[in-house]
Amino acid sequence: MTVARAIERALPGRQLIYFGDLARTPYGNKSADAILEYSVQNTQFLIDHGATVVVVACNSASSVAPEYLRQRFSLPIIEVIRPAIELALAEPKTKRIGIIGTTATIRSGIYEQQLKQLAPDVEVYSQACPLLVPLVEEGWTRRQETKMIVRRYLQPLRQRAIDTLVLGCTHYPLLKHIIQPRIGRRVRIIDSSEAVAKTLASVALPDYSLAAPASGERNRFFVSDWTPAAAKTAQGIFGRPVELVKV
Amino acid sequence: MTVARAIERALPGRQLIYFGDLARTPYGNKSADAILEYSVQNTQFLIDHGATVVVVACNSASSVAPEYLRQRFSLPIIEVIRPAIELALAEPKTKRIGIIGTTATIRSGIYEQQLKQLAPDVEVYSQACPLLVPLVEEGWTRRQETKMIVRRYLQPLRQRAIDTLVLGCTHYPLLKHIIQPRIGRRVRIIDSSEAVAKTLASVALPDYSLAAPASGERNRFFVSDWTPAAAKTAQGIFGRPVELVKV
Repeated sequence: MTVARAIERALPGRQLIYFGDLARTPYGNKSADAILEYSVQNTQFLIDHGATVVVVACNSASSVAPEYLRQRFSLPIIEVIRPAIELALAEPKTKRIGIIGTTATIRSGIYEQQLKQLAPDVEVYSQACPLLVPLVEEGWTRRQETKMIVRRYLQPLRQRAIDTLVLGCTHYPLLKHIIQPRIGRRVRIIDSSEAVAKTLASVALPDYSLAAPASGERNRFFVSDWTPAAAKTAQGIFGRPVELVKV
Repeated sequence: MTVARAIERALPGRQLIYFGDLARTPYGNKSADAILEYSVQNTQFLIDHGATVVVVACNSASSVAPEYLRQRFSLPIIEVIRPAIELALAEPKTKRIGIIGTTATIRSGIYEQQLKQLAPDVEVYSQACPLLVPLVEEGWTRRQETKMIVRRYLQPLRQRAIDTLVLGCTHYPLLKHIIQPRIGRRVRIIDSSEAVAKTLASVALPDYSLAAPASGERNRFFVSDWTPAAAKTAQGIFGRPVELVKV
Protein backbone atom coordinates (compact mmCIF):
# COMPACT_ATOMS: atom_id res chain seq x y z
CA MET A 1 0.00 0.00 0.00
CA THR A 2 2.89 2.39 0.65
CA VAL A 3 4.04 1.80 -2.93
CA ALA A 4 0.54 2.20 -4.34
CA ARG A 5 0.21 5.48 -2.47
CA ALA A 6 3.57 6.73 -3.78
CA ILE A 7 2.61 5.75 -7.36
CA GLU A 8 -0.76 7.44 -7.01
CA ARG A 9 1.02 10.63 -6.01
CA ALA A 10 3.63 10.39 -8.76
CA LEU A 11 1.19 9.45 -11.55
CA PRO A 12 -2.11 11.00 -10.55
CA GLY A 13 -3.63 10.71 -14.04
CA ARG A 14 -3.22 6.93 -14.39
CA GLN A 15 -5.55 4.20 -13.24
CA LEU A 16 -4.09 2.05 -10.49
CA ILE A 17 -5.21 -1.57 -10.05
CA TYR A 18 -4.05 -2.78 -6.66
CA PHE A 19 -4.04 -6.36 -5.40
CA GLY A 20 -3.13 -7.12 -1.78
CA ASP A 21 -2.74 -10.83 -1.05
CA LEU A 22 -3.90 -10.51 2.55
CA ALA A 23 -5.15 -14.11 2.65
CA ARG A 24 -1.55 -15.34 2.40
CA THR A 25 0.64 -12.55 3.74
CA PRO A 26 3.11 -12.03 5.26
CA TYR A 27 5.42 -13.35 2.52
CA GLY A 28 8.66 -12.43 4.30
CA ASN A 29 9.01 -15.62 6.37
CA LYS A 30 7.93 -17.98 3.58
CA SER A 31 10.11 -19.94 1.16
CA ALA A 32 11.24 -18.62 -2.24
CA ASP A 33 9.16 -21.34 -3.93
CA ALA A 34 5.96 -20.27 -2.20
CA ILE A 35 6.57 -16.58 -2.91
CA LEU A 36 7.27 -17.32 -6.59
CA GLU A 37 4.05 -19.29 -6.95
CA TYR A 38 1.99 -16.51 -5.33
CA SER A 39 3.69 -13.87 -7.48
CA VAL A 40 2.70 -15.65 -10.69
CA GLN A 41 -0.92 -15.90 -9.55
CA ASN A 42 -1.02 -12.28 -8.44
CA THR A 43 0.48 -11.03 -11.71
CA GLN A 44 -2.05 -13.04 -13.70
CA PHE A 45 -4.84 -11.49 -11.61
CA LEU A 46 -3.63 -7.96 -12.37
CA ILE A 47 -3.32 -8.70 -16.09
CA ASP A 48 -6.82 -10.20 -16.11
CA HIS A 49 -8.05 -6.96 -14.56
CA GLY A 50 -6.49 -4.81 -17.24
CA ALA A 51 -2.98 -3.96 -16.02
CA THR A 52 -0.53 -2.99 -18.77
CA VAL A 53 2.45 -2.52 -16.44
CA VAL A 54 2.90 -4.62 -13.30
CA VAL A 55 4.71 -3.37 -10.20
CA VAL A 56 5.88 -6.10 -7.81
CA ALA A 57 5.33 -3.86 -4.79
CA CYS A 58 6.94 -6.15 -2.24
CA ASN A 59 10.64 -6.69 -1.59
CA SER A 60 10.23 -10.36 -0.67
CA ALA A 61 8.52 -11.02 -4.01
CA SER A 62 10.93 -8.71 -5.85
CA SER A 63 13.87 -10.69 -4.45
CA VAL A 64 12.79 -13.97 -6.08
CA ALA A 65 10.18 -13.45 -8.80
CA PRO A 66 10.92 -10.72 -11.42
CA GLU A 67 13.10 -12.74 -13.84
CA TYR A 68 10.60 -15.59 -13.88
CA LEU A 69 7.68 -13.19 -14.31
CA ARG A 70 9.43 -11.47 -17.24
CA GLN A 71 9.93 -14.82 -18.98
CA ARG A 72 6.34 -15.79 -18.43
CA PHE A 73 4.49 -12.53 -19.08
CA SER A 74 5.07 -10.15 -21.95
CA LEU A 75 4.33 -6.86 -20.23
CA PRO A 76 6.80 -4.70 -18.26
CA ILE A 77 7.49 -5.93 -14.73
CA ILE A 78 8.80 -3.23 -12.39
CA GLU A 79 10.23 -4.39 -9.08
CA VAL A 80 11.19 -2.42 -6.00
CA ILE A 81 14.82 -3.42 -5.43
CA ARG A 82 16.68 -1.97 -8.40
CA PRO A 83 15.10 1.48 -8.05
CA ALA A 84 16.11 1.63 -4.39
CA ILE A 85 19.68 0.60 -5.24
CA GLU A 86 19.94 3.20 -7.98
CA LEU A 87 18.61 5.88 -5.67
CA ALA A 88 21.18 4.87 -3.04
CA LEU A 89 24.07 5.00 -5.53
CA ALA A 90 22.93 8.27 -7.09
CA GLU A 91 24.60 10.04 -4.18
CA PRO A 92 28.36 9.83 -4.87
CA LYS A 93 29.29 9.92 -1.17
CA THR A 94 27.59 6.56 -0.63
CA LYS A 95 30.27 4.11 0.56
CA ARG A 96 28.74 1.95 3.28
CA ILE A 97 25.17 0.76 2.71
CA GLY A 98 22.96 -1.04 5.19
CA ILE A 99 19.97 -3.08 4.04
CA ILE A 100 17.07 -4.09 6.27
CA GLY A 101 14.30 -6.42 5.13
CA THR A 102 12.35 -9.57 5.80
CA THR A 103 14.02 -12.95 6.25
CA ALA A 104 13.14 -13.93 2.66
CA THR A 105 14.61 -10.73 1.17
CA ILE A 106 17.84 -10.81 3.20
CA ARG A 107 18.30 -14.56 2.67
CA SER A 108 18.07 -14.05 -1.11
CA GLY A 109 21.21 -11.86 -1.05
CA ILE A 110 19.85 -9.87 -3.96
CA TYR A 111 20.78 -6.42 -2.64
CA GLU A 112 24.41 -7.47 -2.14
CA GLN A 113 24.56 -9.05 -5.63
CA GLN A 114 23.13 -6.04 -7.44
CA LEU A 115 25.10 -3.49 -5.43
CA LYS A 116 28.37 -5.35 -6.03
CA GLN A 117 27.63 -5.41 -9.76
CA LEU A 118 26.93 -1.70 -9.98
CA ALA A 119 29.42 -0.44 -7.40
CA PRO A 120 32.11 -2.98 -6.51
CA ASP A 121 33.78 -0.62 -4.00
CA VAL A 122 30.70 -0.07 -1.86
CA GLU A 123 30.48 -2.04 1.40
CA VAL A 124 27.10 -3.70 2.04
CA TYR A 125 25.75 -4.94 5.37
CA SER A 126 22.37 -6.56 5.72
CA GLN A 127 20.06 -7.35 8.59
CA ALA A 128 16.79 -9.31 8.61
CA CYS A 129 14.11 -7.64 10.78
CA PRO A 130 11.27 -10.20 10.74
CA LEU A 131 9.21 -8.69 13.55
CA LEU A 132 8.80 -5.25 12.00
CA VAL A 133 6.02 -6.32 9.61
CA PRO A 134 3.79 -7.71 12.39
CA LEU A 135 4.48 -4.63 14.53
CA VAL A 136 3.44 -2.32 11.68
CA GLU A 137 0.37 -4.42 10.91
CA GLU A 138 -0.70 -4.14 14.55
CA GLY A 139 -0.32 -0.39 14.34
CA TRP A 140 2.43 -0.37 16.98
CA THR A 141 4.39 2.32 15.17
CA ARG A 142 5.02 4.50 18.22
CA ARG A 143 5.31 1.98 21.05
CA GLN A 144 8.31 1.62 23.34
CA GLU A 145 8.60 -2.09 22.54
CA THR A 146 8.84 -1.29 18.82
CA LYS A 147 11.59 1.24 19.50
CA MET A 148 13.53 -1.37 21.50
CA ILE A 149 13.17 -3.98 18.78
CA VAL A 150 14.23 -1.50 16.09
CA ARG A 151 17.27 -0.54 18.18
CA ARG A 152 18.22 -4.21 18.59
CA TYR A 153 17.93 -4.90 14.85
CA LEU A 154 19.89 -1.77 13.89
CA GLN A 155 22.72 -2.26 16.39
CA PRO A 156 24.94 -4.34 14.02
CA LEU A 157 24.50 -1.72 11.27
CA ARG A 158 25.36 1.12 13.66
CA GLN A 159 28.59 -0.66 14.52
CA ARG A 160 29.44 -0.76 10.81
CA ALA A 161 29.06 3.02 10.59
CA ILE A 162 26.87 2.92 7.49
CA ASP A 163 26.17 6.16 5.62
CA THR A 164 23.00 4.94 3.83
CA LEU A 165 20.17 2.66 4.96
CA VAL A 166 17.82 1.04 2.44
CA LEU A 167 14.36 0.23 3.78
CA GLY A 168 14.11 -3.08 1.96
CA CYS A 169 10.48 -3.76 2.85
CA THR A 170 7.43 -1.75 1.89
CA HIS A 171 6.17 -1.76 5.49
CA TYR A 172 9.22 0.01 6.88
CA PRO A 173 8.45 3.56 5.67
CA LEU A 174 5.75 3.55 8.36
CA LEU A 175 8.57 3.19 10.93
CA LYS A 176 10.92 5.75 9.41
CA HIS A 177 10.34 8.18 12.29
CA ILE A 178 11.74 5.68 14.79
CA ILE A 179 14.40 4.19 12.51
CA GLN A 180 16.05 7.54 11.68
CA PRO A 181 17.00 8.56 15.26
CA ARG A 182 18.20 5.02 16.08
CA ILE A 183 20.44 4.59 13.05
CA GLY A 184 21.71 8.16 13.32
CA ARG A 185 20.59 11.52 11.97
CA ARG A 186 23.37 11.63 9.37
CA VAL A 187 22.46 8.32 7.75
CA ARG A 188 20.51 8.76 4.53
CA ILE A 189 17.39 6.57 4.43
CA ILE A 190 16.21 5.18 1.09
CA ASP A 191 12.48 4.49 0.86
CA SER A 192 11.86 1.94 -1.90
CA SER A 193 8.24 3.02 -2.31
CA GLU A 194 9.36 6.49 -3.37
CA ALA A 195 12.14 5.04 -5.50
CA VAL A 196 9.83 2.77 -7.46
CA ALA A 197 7.32 5.55 -8.08
CA LYS A 198 10.14 7.66 -9.56
CA THR A 199 11.25 4.75 -11.75
CA LEU A 200 7.76 4.16 -12.97
CA ALA A 201 7.30 7.82 -13.79
CA SER A 202 10.64 8.31 -15.52
CA VAL A 203 11.40 4.96 -17.12
CA ALA A 204 8.17 3.17 -17.89
CA LEU A 205 6.16 6.11 -19.08
CA PRO A 206 7.87 6.95 -22.37
CA ASP A 207 7.63 3.40 -23.66
CA TYR A 208 4.38 1.92 -22.51
CA SER A 209 0.71 2.50 -22.47
CA LEU A 210 0.86 4.17 -19.06
CA ALA A 211 1.86 7.20 -21.14
CA ALA A 212 -1.56 7.22 -22.72
CA PRO A 213 -3.93 9.96 -21.66
CA ALA A 214 -5.62 9.44 -18.35
CA SER A 215 -8.54 7.10 -18.72
CA GLY A 216 -10.66 8.83 -16.14
CA GLU A 217 -11.34 5.48 -14.51
CA ARG A 218 -10.88 5.49 -10.80
CA ASN A 219 -8.33 3.40 -8.96
CA ARG A 220 -9.41 -0.05 -7.81
CA PHE A 221 -8.22 -1.89 -4.73
CA PHE A 222 -8.61 -5.65 -4.54
CA VAL A 223 -7.65 -7.90 -1.62
CA SER A 224 -7.75 -11.68 -1.16
CA ASP A 225 -9.01 -11.24 2.41
CA TRP A 226 -10.79 -8.40 4.15
CA THR A 227 -10.37 -7.48 7.80
CA PRO A 228 -11.15 -4.30 9.75
CA ALA A 229 -7.40 -3.93 10.43
CA ALA A 230 -6.64 -3.86 6.70
CA ALA A 231 -9.28 -1.21 6.08
CA LYS A 232 -7.86 0.90 8.89
CA THR A 233 -4.30 0.55 7.58
CA ALA A 234 -5.45 1.57 4.09
CA GLN A 235 -7.18 4.65 5.45
CA GLY A 236 -4.04 5.58 7.39
CA ILE A 237 -1.75 5.22 4.38
CA PHE A 238 -3.99 6.88 1.79
CA GLY A 239 -5.37 9.52 4.13
CA ARG A 240 -8.92 8.73 3.01
CA PRO A 241 -11.31 5.77 3.20
CA VAL A 242 -10.34 3.22 0.55
CA GLU A 243 -12.80 0.57 -0.59
CA LEU A 244 -10.99 -2.79 -0.43
CA VAL A 245 -12.88 -5.27 -2.62
CA LYS A 246 -12.50 -8.90 -1.57
CA VAL A 247 -11.92 -11.32 -4.44
CA MET B 1 2.95 -28.64 16.57
CA THR B 2 2.47 -28.23 20.33
CA VAL B 3 -0.83 -30.12 20.00
CA ALA B 4 0.71 -32.82 17.80
CA ARG B 5 3.47 -33.27 20.38
CA ALA B 6 0.96 -33.55 23.24
CA ILE B 7 -1.12 -36.10 21.28
CA GLU B 8 1.98 -38.10 20.44
CA ARG B 9 2.78 -38.29 24.14
CA ALA B 10 -0.79 -39.15 25.17
CA LEU B 11 -1.38 -41.74 22.41
CA PRO B 12 2.04 -43.16 21.62
CA GLY B 13 0.70 -46.25 19.81
CA ARG B 14 -1.35 -44.35 17.20
CA GLN B 15 -0.22 -43.00 13.89
CA LEU B 16 -0.28 -39.22 13.66
CA ILE B 17 -0.75 -37.45 10.32
CA TYR B 18 0.17 -33.80 10.75
CA PHE B 19 -0.49 -30.97 8.30
CA GLY B 20 0.94 -27.51 8.94
CA ASP B 21 -0.36 -24.84 6.56
CA LEU B 22 2.83 -22.80 6.69
CA ALA B 23 2.25 -21.35 3.21
CA ARG B 24 -0.77 -19.42 4.56
CA THR B 25 -0.19 -18.99 8.28
CA PRO B 26 -0.60 -17.12 10.51
CA TYR B 27 -4.39 -17.51 10.54
CA GLY B 28 -4.96 -15.35 13.59
CA ASN B 29 -5.19 -12.01 11.82
CA LYS B 30 -7.24 -13.27 8.87
CA SER B 31 -11.03 -13.16 8.39
CA ALA B 32 -13.38 -15.94 9.50
CA ASP B 33 -14.22 -16.62 5.83
CA ALA B 34 -10.60 -17.20 4.87
CA ILE B 35 -9.95 -19.42 7.91
CA LEU B 36 -13.06 -21.48 7.16
CA GLU B 37 -12.01 -22.06 3.55
CA TYR B 38 -8.51 -23.14 4.60
CA SER B 39 -9.92 -25.44 7.29
CA VAL B 40 -12.05 -27.31 4.76
CA GLN B 41 -9.07 -27.80 2.44
CA ASN B 42 -6.80 -28.92 5.28
CA THR B 43 -9.37 -31.40 6.61
CA GLN B 44 -9.82 -32.87 3.14
CA PHE B 45 -6.04 -33.26 2.87
CA LEU B 46 -5.87 -35.19 6.15
CA ILE B 47 -8.76 -37.45 5.14
CA ASP B 48 -7.11 -38.11 1.78
CA HIS B 49 -3.99 -39.18 3.69
CA GLY B 50 -5.84 -41.66 5.84
CA ALA B 51 -7.00 -39.75 8.92
CA THR B 52 -9.99 -41.31 10.74
CA VAL B 53 -10.22 -38.59 13.41
CA VAL B 54 -9.36 -34.95 12.67
CA VAL B 55 -8.03 -32.55 15.31
CA VAL B 56 -8.37 -28.86 14.44
CA ALA B 57 -5.16 -28.00 16.28
CA CYS B 58 -5.49 -24.23 16.04
CA ASN B 59 -7.69 -21.96 18.12
CA SER B 60 -8.34 -19.51 15.28
CA ALA B 61 -9.65 -22.37 13.11
CA SER B 62 -11.46 -23.96 16.07
CA SER B 63 -13.26 -20.69 16.72
CA VAL B 64 -14.95 -20.61 13.30
CA ALA B 65 -14.78 -23.98 11.53
CA PRO B 66 -15.85 -27.06 13.59
CA GLU B 67 -19.62 -26.92 13.04
CA TYR B 68 -19.21 -26.48 9.32
CA LEU B 69 -16.60 -29.25 9.15
CA ARG B 70 -18.90 -31.62 11.06
CA GLN B 71 -21.71 -30.96 8.57
CA ARG B 72 -19.43 -31.53 5.63
CA PHE B 73 -17.31 -34.47 6.78
CA SER B 74 -18.57 -37.64 8.45
CA LEU B 75 -15.62 -38.39 10.73
CA PRO B 76 -15.10 -37.03 14.25
CA ILE B 77 -13.80 -33.46 14.40
CA ILE B 78 -12.04 -32.60 17.67
CA GLU B 79 -11.30 -28.93 18.29
CA VAL B 80 -9.14 -27.28 20.91
CA ILE B 81 -11.54 -24.85 22.59
CA ARG B 82 -14.09 -27.07 24.35
CA PRO B 83 -11.41 -29.29 25.97
CA ALA B 84 -9.65 -26.21 27.38
CA ILE B 85 -12.93 -24.84 28.75
CA GLU B 86 -13.82 -28.14 30.38
CA LEU B 87 -10.37 -28.38 31.92
CA ALA B 88 -10.76 -24.84 33.29
CA LEU B 89 -14.19 -25.58 34.78
CA ALA B 90 -13.11 -28.94 36.22
CA GLU B 91 -11.62 -27.01 39.13
CA PRO B 92 -14.59 -25.87 41.28
CA LYS B 93 -12.77 -22.79 42.59
CA THR B 94 -12.71 -21.31 39.09
CA LYS B 95 -14.66 -18.04 39.18
CA ARG B 96 -12.82 -15.51 37.04
CA ILE B 97 -11.35 -16.75 33.78
CA GLY B 98 -9.05 -14.85 31.45
CA ILE B 99 -8.69 -15.85 27.81
CA ILE B 100 -5.78 -14.84 25.59
CA GLY B 101 -5.67 -15.60 21.86
CA THR B 102 -5.26 -14.23 18.37
CA THR B 103 -7.43 -11.46 17.00
CA ALA B 104 -9.57 -13.99 15.08
CA THR B 105 -10.17 -16.15 18.15
CA ILE B 106 -11.00 -13.29 20.51
CA ARG B 107 -13.16 -11.53 17.91
CA SER B 108 -15.24 -14.71 17.50
CA GLY B 109 -16.33 -14.53 21.15
CA ILE B 110 -16.51 -18.33 21.27
CA TYR B 111 -14.85 -18.77 24.65
CA GLU B 112 -17.30 -16.35 26.29
CA GLN B 113 -20.28 -18.07 24.61
CA GLN B 114 -19.30 -21.58 25.61
CA LEU B 115 -18.25 -20.62 29.13
CA LYS B 116 -21.50 -18.74 29.74
CA GLN B 117 -23.46 -21.80 28.59
CA LEU B 118 -21.63 -24.20 30.86
CA ALA B 119 -21.09 -21.93 33.85
CA PRO B 120 -23.30 -18.82 33.85
CA ASP B 121 -21.79 -17.52 37.08
CA VAL B 122 -18.21 -17.47 35.91
CA GLU B 123 -16.77 -14.11 34.86
CA VAL B 124 -14.86 -14.12 31.58
CA TYR B 125 -12.35 -11.53 30.36
CA SER B 126 -10.58 -11.81 27.04
CA GLN B 127 -7.58 -10.17 25.47
CA ALA B 128 -6.24 -10.46 21.92
CA CYS B 129 -2.44 -10.80 21.81
CA PRO B 130 -1.66 -10.65 18.08
CA LEU B 131 2.11 -10.18 18.37
CA LEU B 132 2.79 -13.32 20.39
CA VAL B 133 2.62 -15.68 17.41
CA PRO B 134 5.28 -13.78 15.41
CA LEU B 135 7.46 -13.51 18.54
CA VAL B 136 7.27 -17.28 19.11
CA GLU B 137 7.89 -18.00 15.44
CA GLU B 138 11.04 -15.86 15.58
CA GLY B 139 12.20 -17.85 18.60
CA TRP B 140 12.10 -14.74 20.84
CA THR B 141 10.77 -16.73 23.79
CA ARG B 142 13.22 -15.33 26.36
CA ARG B 143 13.82 -11.78 25.13
CA GLN B 144 13.20 -8.66 27.18
CA GLU B 145 10.98 -7.20 24.46
CA THR B 146 8.76 -10.28 24.57
CA LYS B 147 8.44 -9.99 28.35
CA MET B 148 7.40 -6.33 28.01
CA ILE B 149 4.82 -7.14 25.33
CA VAL B 150 3.41 -10.02 27.41
CA ARG B 151 3.17 -7.72 30.44
CA ARG B 152 1.32 -5.10 28.38
CA TYR B 153 -1.17 -7.66 27.03
CA LEU B 154 -1.78 -9.24 30.45
CA GLN B 155 -2.21 -5.95 32.34
CA PRO B 156 -6.01 -5.72 31.81
CA LEU B 157 -6.43 -9.33 32.99
CA ARG B 158 -4.29 -8.70 36.09
CA GLN B 159 -6.54 -5.80 36.97
CA ARG B 160 -9.52 -8.17 36.81
CA ALA B 161 -7.88 -10.49 39.36
CA ILE B 162 -8.50 -13.63 37.31
CA ASP B 163 -7.93 -17.01 38.95
CA THR B 164 -7.52 -18.99 35.69
CA LEU B 165 -5.90 -18.11 32.39
CA VAL B 166 -6.65 -20.10 29.23
CA LEU B 167 -3.86 -20.08 26.63
CA GLY B 168 -6.23 -19.79 23.69
CA CYS B 169 -3.56 -20.25 20.99
CA THR B 170 -1.39 -23.26 20.37
CA HIS B 171 1.75 -21.10 20.18
CA TYR B 172 1.38 -19.75 23.71
CA PRO B 173 2.55 -22.82 25.65
CA LEU B 174 6.02 -21.90 24.38
CA LEU B 175 5.69 -18.64 26.36
CA LYS B 176 4.23 -20.16 29.52
CA HIS B 177 7.46 -19.52 31.47
CA ILE B 178 7.13 -15.78 30.93
CA ILE B 179 3.33 -15.63 31.13
CA GLN B 180 3.08 -17.32 34.56
CA PRO B 181 5.20 -14.80 36.54
CA ARG B 182 3.51 -11.85 34.82
CA ILE B 183 -0.08 -12.96 35.39
CA GLY B 184 0.75 -14.09 38.94
CA ARG B 185 1.96 -17.34 40.47
CA ARG B 186 -1.45 -18.21 41.88
CA VAL B 187 -3.27 -18.06 38.56
CA ARG B 188 -3.88 -21.50 37.07
CA ILE B 189 -2.83 -21.69 33.42
CA ILE B 190 -4.77 -23.94 31.04
CA ASP B 191 -2.77 -25.25 28.11
CA SER B 192 -5.17 -26.25 25.33
CA SER B 193 -2.63 -28.58 23.73
CA GLU B 194 -2.62 -30.74 26.84
CA ALA B 195 -6.40 -30.45 27.19
CA VAL B 196 -7.09 -31.66 23.66
CA ALA B 197 -4.72 -34.62 24.02
CA LYS B 198 -6.63 -35.65 27.15
CA THR B 199 -9.95 -35.32 25.32
CA LEU B 200 -8.72 -37.35 22.41
CA ALA B 201 -7.45 -40.09 24.71
CA SER B 202 -10.52 -40.26 26.97
CA VAL B 203 -13.41 -39.36 24.68
CA ALA B 204 -12.57 -40.32 21.13
CA LEU B 205 -10.81 -43.59 21.79
CA PRO B 206 -13.71 -45.81 22.93
CA ASP B 207 -15.82 -44.96 19.90
CA TYR B 208 -13.55 -44.65 16.93
CA SER B 209 -10.88 -46.46 15.04
CA LEU B 210 -8.13 -44.70 16.96
CA ALA B 211 -8.90 -47.39 19.55
CA ALA B 212 -7.70 -50.02 17.10
CA PRO B 213 -4.34 -51.65 17.84
CA ALA B 214 -1.33 -49.59 16.90
CA SER B 215 -0.63 -49.84 13.21
CA GLY B 216 3.11 -49.69 13.59
CA GLU B 217 3.22 -46.98 10.93
CA ARG B 218 5.32 -44.03 11.86
CA ASN B 219 4.00 -40.52 12.24
CA ARG B 220 4.01 -38.29 9.17
CA PHE B 221 4.47 -34.54 9.09
CA PHE B 222 3.32 -32.56 6.05
CA VAL B 223 3.66 -28.82 5.51
CA SER B 224 2.46 -26.54 2.70
CA ASP B 225 5.76 -24.61 2.83
CA TRP B 226 9.19 -25.53 4.11
CA THR B 227 11.63 -23.10 5.71
CA PRO B 228 14.70 -23.62 7.92
CA ALA B 229 12.85 -21.78 10.71
CA ALA B 230 9.98 -24.31 10.63
CA ALA B 231 12.38 -27.25 10.80
CA LYS B 232 14.13 -25.66 13.78
CA THR B 233 10.82 -25.00 15.56
CA ALA B 234 9.74 -28.61 15.00
CA GLN B 235 13.00 -29.92 16.41
CA GLY B 236 12.59 -27.68 19.46
CA ILE B 237 9.01 -28.81 20.15
CA PHE B 238 9.49 -32.53 19.49
CA GLY B 239 12.96 -32.75 21.01
CA ARG B 240 14.22 -34.60 17.94
CA PRO B 241 14.71 -33.88 14.22
CA VAL B 242 11.31 -34.12 12.48
CA GLU B 243 11.11 -34.58 8.73
CA LEU B 244 8.67 -31.98 7.39
CA VAL B 245 7.48 -33.08 3.95
CA LYS B 246 6.44 -30.24 1.66
CA VAL B 247 3.23 -30.88 -0.29
